[in-house]
Amino acid sequence: MSDTPYPFSKRGSTEEVEEGRAFAPKFDADGLVTCVATDARSGEVLMVAHMNAEALQKTIASGEAWYFSRSRRTLWRKGETSGHVQRVVEMRIDCDQDAVWIRVEQQGPGACHTGRRSCFYRAVPVGTTGAVTLEFRDGEKTFDPKSVYRDKS
Amino acid sequence: MSDTPYPFSKRGSTEEVEEGRAFAPKFDADGLVTCVATDARSGEVLMVAHMNAEALQKTIASGEAWYFSRSRRTLWRKGETSGHVQRVVEMRIDCDQDAVWIRVEQQGPGACHTGRRSCFYRAVPVGTTGAVTLEFRDGEKTFDPKSVYRDKS
Repeated sequence: MSDTPYPFSKRGSTEEVEEGRAFAPKFDADGLVTCVATDARSGEVLMVAHMNAEALQKTIASGEAWYFSRSRRTLWRKGETSGHVQRVVEMRIDCDQDAVWIRVEQQGPGACHTGRRSCFYRAVPVGTTGAVTLEFRDGEKTFDPKSVYRDKS
Repeated sequence: MSDTPYPFSKRGSTEEVEEGRAFAPKFDADGLVTCVATDARSGEVLMVAHMNAEALQKTIASGEAWYFSRSRRTLWRKGETSGHVQRVVEMRIDCDQDAVWIRVEQQGPGACHTGRRSCFYRAVPVGTTGAVTLEFRDGEKTFDPKSVYRDKS
């Protein structure tokens, strides 16, 4: 699909990976890194997803978020169907270079396929033992997923 | 180690998992969920790590972050060696319940084993093609990892 060589360096020593300027992402056994997308303004975590080498390359080149769907086994441009594109304001990589954090401007009413701004709309009570019941927080739907995703798959 | 039964429900239908109050985390083939820890005050992403069922249970019961180290294959209480404990202010779970977001009060000078506040101290320039060179951001060390982790492993 793309003839552009991946802009990744070979992984060197731990010192080089952690303290250097070489971009040497560590893809897992499935060829993926974890990606956290936060709202560039509010800091809210919008979603957690995965990128393979091509998704990472396309995100860097285009400045818009691309992911790899583990369930569908396909490359996926965020907003391709819904129009809810994520413009990347800043990308960071972590110490051992196996996780990426993108601060994004979320286009449209939300990031979550359930029709909400963020995928994290339920809280797990902490400091308790025994049965856990989730609590909805910021769980209001900001769009109708049936209408947004209809006839576009 | 723990006789407490896990406080997890069986996974039901997609509708139940996404719209219900039952806590039914989806552990991957390695028995893990992804966890993002952000600073409860600044919103900054401090780290991305993993939790197995026991780490998740212990985090919920204690209100302090426990993780599972993929490289060491061990349960790990954050701050056990360094004292840099993470007190969980709020835990959220995402739509399909395979990722957890914890907002934490980070004790001590930082979360990263390299001696920094956050693991995400380097930026990847976006909107570019060709070679990528990382740029340090907020990369000042806030503690000396050699002294913090010395003689404690």
